Order: sequence, then C-alpha cells, then structure tokens
Amino acid sequence: MNELDFIKYLESNVKKGRGVVKGIGDDAAVLEYSRDKYLLFASDMIIEGVHFKAGEKGYNVGWKAAAVNISDIAAMGGVPKYITVSAGVDKINGIRYLKDVLKGAEDLCAKFGVAIAGGDTNLSDKTVVDVSIIGEVEKNKVILRNTAKIGDMIFVTGSLGGGRKRHLGFIPKIKESRLLNANFKVNSMIDISDGLMLDLTRICVSSGVGARIYENLIPLDPSARDLRDAISYGEDFELLFTVPVREAVRLIKYMGRAMNLFCTLIGEITQADKGVRLIGDDGKTKKVGPKGFIHFE
Amino acid sequence: MNELDFIKYLESNVKKGRGVVKGIGDDAAVLEYSRDKYLLFASDMIIEGVHFKAGEKGYNVGWKAAAVNISDIAAMGGVPKYITVSAGVDKINGIRYLKDVLKGAEDLCAKFGVAIAGGDTNLSDKTVVDVSIIGEVEKNKVILRNTAKIGDMIFVTGSLGGGRKRHLGFIPKIKESRLLNANFKVNSMIDISDGLMLDLTRICVSSGVGARIYENLIPLDPSARDLRDAISYGEDFELLFTVPVREAVRLIKYMGRAMNLFCTLIGEITQADKGVRLIGDDGKTKKVGPKGFIHFE
Repeated sequence: MNELDFIKYLESNVKKGRGVVKGIGDDAAVLEYSRDKYLLFASDMIIEGVHFKAGEKGYNVGWKAAAVNISDIAAMGGVPKYITVSAGVDKINGIRYLKDVLKGAEDLCAKFGVAIAGGDTNLSDKTVVDVSIIGEVEKNKVILRNTAKIGDMIFVTGSLGGGRKRHLGFIPKIKESRLLNANFKVNSMIDISDGLMLDLTRICVSSGVGARIYENLIPLDPSARDLRDAISYGEDFELLFTVPVREAVRLIKYMGRAMNLFCTLIGEITQADKGVRLIGDDGKTKKVGPKGFIHFE
Repeated sequence: MNELDFIKYLESNVKKGRGVVKGIGDDAAVLEYSRDKYLLFASDMIIEGVHFKAGEKGYNVGWKAAAVNISDIAAMGGVPKYITVSAGVDKINGIRYLKDVLKGAEDLCAKFGVAIAGGDTNLSDKTVVDVSIIGEVEKNKVILRNTAKIGDMIFVTGSLGGGRKRHLGFIPKIKESRLLNANFKVNSMIDISDGLMLDLTRICVSSGVGARIYENLIPLDPSARDLRDAISYGEDFELLFTVPVREAVRLIKYMGRAMNLFCTLIGEITQADKGVRLIGDDGKTKKVGPKGFIHFE
C-alpha cells in the first residue's frame, strides 16, 4: 500500500463527523462555519532529511512550514487566517533555532495577514516543524479537487521545475487563487507539492476523470534541468486547476488585459478510461503513471 | 533561556493578529468566531523518546496525541470539534503503524464526538505525531489561565501522580470541565501536563499572583510512588483550577449531592510576593520553585 492508496483507505475508513463538509482527501478539510462561509483546516509537517537538509537555517524552515500550509488554503480558493507552529528541535540549537523558525513563519504570515495563534515546543533529535492552519472561504467559492469535469481546460500558475531551487523560500499563490476565484468559475484545484503528474493524477482519480497534457505547453522554469524536474520533482507549489472551456477563453483574454495573473493552458480533462497522458513533442501519446514524489511505496 | 522564559518571550514578541482574542500563552488560542462563541485552536506534538518510548504501540501513540489536544480544549472550558493528525513514521513500520495511530486517535475522538478532519503523513526516523485541534466555547464561558484572583480557592480534578502509569491511555477531562463551566464561575484553569508545581506556577505567573497549597491535601494516586510523582512528574492531565470562595463552598456541596464530579481543594491563591509555596505536613512553609518537567533549560 503506497501513500496514495493509504489516503484512499483513510477517505473511506475515517468517519466523516458532524460539521465536516469535506474531510480527508483534499488540501484542507472544509468545515461548517457561518451562514455564508466555510472554515478550512489543514496541517502539514516538514522533517529534516525529508523536506529540508540537516543544517538548514531555522528561518527558512519556519518560512517553508508556514508556506506549505498557506498553499493548502490557496488550493481551496480560501483566505488564510491563523496558524499554530509546533516544533521539535535538538538540545544544542534549542531556543535560538526555535526563534529563527518563528521569525521565518512570522515574516511570511505578515505578507498575508495571518496570525500565529499558538504552538508547542519540544526536544527532538531531528528538526521537525508541523504547522496547522485555519482559513475561511465563501461557501459558493470553495474549490475542491474532486470536481473536475470532462472537457475542462487544465491550467497551471507560474512555471514548473524550479522547486529544487526555490522550495524553501516560495510565496504561496494566495493572490492568484483569490483572483481566479473572484473572476472565474474554477471547477477543481490543487497545489503542486509532489510533481505535476502526481498531483494531476490526484485530481483525476478523485474526480473520476482522465487528462491529457502537452509536453511542449508546460511552462518550464529557467532553473529546471529538464522536463522531468517540471513533471515529477514537486515542491513547485504552483496551482493546478481546471475550468470550463468558456472560462478558459475568458481567462486567457483577462490575462492579456490585466497583467496581474500568469497561468498557462497545458491540456484538458478527458474521460477516465483514457488515463492521465502526456503528449510528447512528436505528437505521440505517452501513457505515464503518477511519477511524483511518493513518501511510501 | 528555558521553556518558560521562551513562552514569555513569544507572548510579548509574536504580534497578536486581528481576530486573536488570546494568542500564545494559554492551553489554546481564543479566536473570534460567532456572536456568542469563540473558536479554540491548539496544537501539541508528541515525539518518540520524549513523550513515549521507542516501540510503543501506534494505537497508544495516536490515542495520546489526540488526548493531549482534547485536554487543551478541556482546560479552556470548551467543546472539542475537529482534529488533524500529522504523523512521521519510519519506512519499516510505515502504513501499518499509521493505521494504528489513526485508530487510536479515532477511538478516543469517538468518545467526544470529535471528527478527524485531515492530516499529513511523512517519513521520519523517529515517530512523531502532531495533532491540531479546533474547539469552541461560549464567549462568557471561556476559562483562561491568567485570570486567577487573590483569595481564589485552588482545586484539582481526580488524583495526581498516576501519570507515569496512565499517560498513554488517559481520558481528557472534558466532562469535568463542562460540568464545572455549566455550574460554577471558574476564574482560571490549566491542565496538568508538566506537574502540579510547574502548571500552578504558570497560572500564578500569568495572573500576577502567588499560591499556597497543602501537601496533605493533594489527592495522591494509588500508583504514585511518593508526593514528588504528584507534584513534579506531570502527565496527569487533570484540571487545575481556581474559583472564588463562595463558588468553592457551592462546589463542595454540589459534589456531595451530584456524585458526578470529583475535585479536591488543595490551597488558595495569594499575593504575588508570597510566591508559589507548598505547606508541608509539619505546617511549615516550603518555598519551592517550579519543579515540573521543563523541556529546555
């Protein structure tokens, strides 16, 4: 059972409690809140040796821990509000390192009006930081990952393949998410944490659809070594989303006019039996599996 | 700078964001929510080798991770609603261990109508589980730790010193907290995670008061080896709270009548300059420092 199977296991085995509109299986849980808003609730852990190298600066670790969580809220179309920061650090670096972690998280949070509401500190041989986040979203604006429709156009914000270089200091795509949400009908969305192919597969599996994307449409980051960095390395934290054709046309026109949003059309949603396919430069269809970063196999 | 100093540093250095009624420095953050309720938000991490032994069963680890968080909500007088579970486990135990962790958390949550709303899974050499929790509380019923008043009577639920034995399978004192909250005016409350003396000191320092407790009033758990287990070992997760004298009288009468709540009067809140004192069996005053479990010194 790999991680994708495990998430599927959780989706069907963990009871959806009262007030839970959408539980395990999306970037954040969607919870009943007020008459016109949902609460979003998520948590992401980053661990030394897995998500960052030993010896990494506390400031960068704190920034990233906050950023991956804020990115989860972006992927739901929401507004981030509060985080808690739980950290385990070793005895030698101790408080000094914790202060740096907090400073990194705080500096990023300040950009988005997010408050650090609490946390927990512990001893640990390896540094581990877990941030949990509360956000909110208008009920008619929440964007799930299991609602892609056949015929949807697939877009991605920014460029892909730069994760290797930028994964510590990245800016979550809240601005882009809110602009999209305010101006367009977005059918499904996810943030690319584990590589384009894997995260696209997540949208497809949970929506019961397939997808076709075009190799030569993928916006390669200048720092990407090759296409594989873009489709399978992950840590880009760009938004991958699908919109109906008429919205795709509006979005492309909007971008040319407003210049405050950069997205690229990379393919379309197909029937499930077509699978998730990459169309090569030669026009030939390559059927590829999810080649992202899977933590467990 | 030890952990207590660090928390103090955070309290004064982390900006209190918009919507944050009470941030760092209590068992949970208190956030604006609806007209008559606050949201409670907390997060607690438990790590192999610090909070539980290597080789501990996943079920017990999951239970404890959920329990310490639900206990934080109890300490605020609130009702727990949703948790996320982030876990790092090694490759060998992997998914099987994660399932056990989830099962333990789920079984405890079921007792309190708490929903597991999401989480995150990762590779880690040592097992680490971080749970974050959302609860809610009536605005006029939230119980903080910095609002103890001089002259308050100090009570503790249950018995102390059994933490060594029971710290993995304990039941958070939600029932007791809600009973107290529904029937009495509680001035301040905390859950005893790091030992009676340390957690009492937390109430006193944040409230700007002192305290006097009586050695021979402390309700020793049958499994406690001696008084030190009760005052300084921690992991009891009983509630320590203070009430005005007239409420103390009502509480004692109530307990004799209702038989659904077991608390013990152990002392009283004094002026700050008296410090936090333990009165021995011989009637003599011992001035003792906070002797709980401090993670960093």
